[in-house]
Amino acid sequence: MTTGLVLSLDAMGGDHAPQSVVDGAAQFLKGRRRSVRLLFHGDESELAPLIARHAGLGDVSEIRHTDSQVDMSAKPSDAVRRSRGSSMWNAVHAIKDGEAQVAVSAGNTGALMAISKVILRMKPGVHRPAIAASWPAPKGFSTVLDVGANVDCTPAQLVEFAVLGEAFHRAVQGVARPTVGLLNVGQEELKGSQVIRDADALVRAAGLDMDYRGFIEGDDISAGTTNVVVTDGFTGNVALKTAEGTARLVGGWMKEAMTSNLLAKAGAILLSLGALNNLRARMDPRNVNGGVFLGLNGVVVKSHGGTDAQGFATSLRIALEMADSAFLSEIETNLSRLAAIQEPPAEDAGEPQRETV
Amino acid sequence: MTTGLVLSLDAMGGDHAPQSVVDGAAQFLKGRRRSVRLLFHGDESELAPLIARHAGLGDVSEIRHTDSQVDMSAKPSDAVRRSRGSSMWNAVHAIKDGEAQVAVSAGNTGALMAISKVILRMKPGVHRPAIAASWPAPKGFSTVLDVGANVDCTPAQLVEFAVLGEAFHRAVQGVARPTVGLLNVGQEELKGSQVIRDADALVRAAGLDMDYRGFIEGDDISAGTTNVVVTDGFTGNVALKTAEGTARLVGGWMKEAMTSNLLAKAGAILLSLGALNNLRARMDPRNVNGGVFLGLNGVVVKSHGGTDAQGFATSLRIALEMADSAFLSEIETNLSRLAAIQEPPAEDAGEPQRETV
Repeated sequence: MTTGLVLSLDAMGGDHAPQSVVDGAAQFLKGRRRSVRLLFHGDESELAPLIARHAGLGDVSEIRHTDSQVDMSAKPSDAVRRSRGSSMWNAVHAIKDGEAQVAVSAGNTGALMAISKVILRMKPGVHRPAIAASWPAPKGFSTVLDVGANVDCTPAQLVEFAVLGEAFHRAVQGVARPTVGLLNVGQEELKGSQVIRDADALVRAAGLDMDYRGFIEGDDISAGTTNVVVTDGFTGNVALKTAEGTARLVGGWMKEAMTSNLLAKAGAILLSLGALNNLRARMDPRNVNGGVFLGLNGVVVKSHGGTDAQGFATSLRIALEMADSAFLSEIETNLSRLAAIQEPPAEDAGEPQRETV
Repeated sequence: MTTGLVLSLDAMGGDHAPQSVVDGAAQFLKGRRRSVRLLFHGDESELAPLIARHAGLGDVSEIRHTDSQVDMSAKPSDAVRRSRGSSMWNAVHAIKDGEAQVAVSAGNTGALMAISKVILRMKPGVHRPAIAASWPAPKGFSTVLDVGANVDCTPAQLVEFAVLGEAFHRAVQGVARPTVGLLNVGQEELKGSQVIRDADALVRAAGLDMDYRGFIEGDDISAGTTNVVVTDGFTGNVALKTAEGTARLVGGWMKEAMTSNLLAKAGAILLSLGALNNLRARMDPRNVNGGVFLGLNGVVVKSHGGTDAQGFATSLRIALEMADSAFLSEIETNLSRLAAIQEPPAEDAGEPQRETV
């Protein structure tokens, strides 16, 4: 912590680890001017030769050896009991010990969430952490949460997500007053599930100092209608993966169109000299790979389990942005507002709050 | 019914009705060889001049006048009480009266569903109808249901959707034995909500004669991993609209890439002589516009409320395919299997069924 930022990596987590982690770290460091140090948690005999392949990587890296790692298919409850001393456990613990600012893992999501909760603990006022994803929009990125941590959510949890997501978006995207929407199946108040309608009523009744815009629909996410999109982890996860699948399908169609005949091929060549690579990069899900756990005393970034080096490099960029941002202080500010809702003064209530928790 | 097929149209439903309905009908008829007749339900003084603009349209059309129409923002419960004699009501009633084979409306979804249930009644064994959408996949289309009729679903309802969707896919896509998947957030059995896990257990225990493949995830929809994707109406609606939004965003990026500099512009021109228009058509959500209500004694197709003429024409094509298909007999066959689950013989149960309804 004395010079620059330190990122703590679970080097054994992910389908292609440890190679994807080490190669991704090397990609991430390329051309970067600021000094960043990396802690690799994992099997030294595997990691040392992989790191040695990249010139300069060893100079900023430190290997913290452990034999143990969390199984990709372990249940979260088992993972916590059995994972003490594993690469994932140690990667997160380095945050608590003050050795690093952010932990990154491509391992088992449920286990990473459970371990993070046990080691870092939740911030006061947060029931359960959420996973936030940065989602491409016409201008910059939207923040969508939860994308998988909480399958069933109460209205009160959705309000917490709004508060956490708004702080995250301000800190990471630099928007002074992010707009917030609640994902639903229709904009009219009569539509949607009871939980969503109760959450909407709860946000409105709470008098939060937040630019809340009410209900939005699935197509509003990519349209960037609001900066922050609040939803439960089931719907958010399905939406995120559906968007990835759609981008992949359309990418396949593009490729097909560009090789379907000679004229099209010639056009594609000119286009690729022009701007096609930029378009491909924007459509590549590896360039938005990294979910951030919100609501903990510390920052943990989850990379896709199946990611390659390029995707892991993106997660490290996101981790660095988080470490560099005012995120933790923004969260503190927003949580003090949340505390005010959770115990509202009697004269504050404009309309009666429903029973929700 | 004496000569050819008859489609019954709610000419006043939709944001751009009646013009979008009449112009869409004209587009739909262009170049069609088989004789199709159209019943337009709505305001004759508005409809007659619109129909007269299209040569030949009047010859196959009949206007059934009514002054009344269902408000786009009406609550479903109010709509049923107040809508008797409206353009939507009359369009659906023509099916019951045997005057037409399929009804099409771009009006209020909840009202259309409520009116359809009251007039046509559900088939025996179906709790509530579902809306099925045809979703572009690498080869042909997948069927996704429910995409909006049922916000909260029980496990038994999800099993019904599987049965209805499988019959629909076989009839409309001509696949002899469609594969069926249940949309979840992970493929491992330990993931997902209780409702989804119970539905999975219920399908497996029921011993349905169906090629059920278990859990799939959001990115499997566009990948075409299974022919039929079963989900609740909330998740399905969000997924459908998210995919539309993603396709629109990527389309915007493509346009940007193709006009960003001279080389790219030249490439785009060659490409559009080649295959770009085909790609644009595949990405256009208006070309997959039309949700089909399943589980009723009759076929009703719902077009997007905000659709234009081109999108409405697509809904009419879908309606015609339905009218032409063995859909209703396929549904009958599948529902007899469903009846077998609902009252299973004692010796049939391979494993105990959970309490689900």
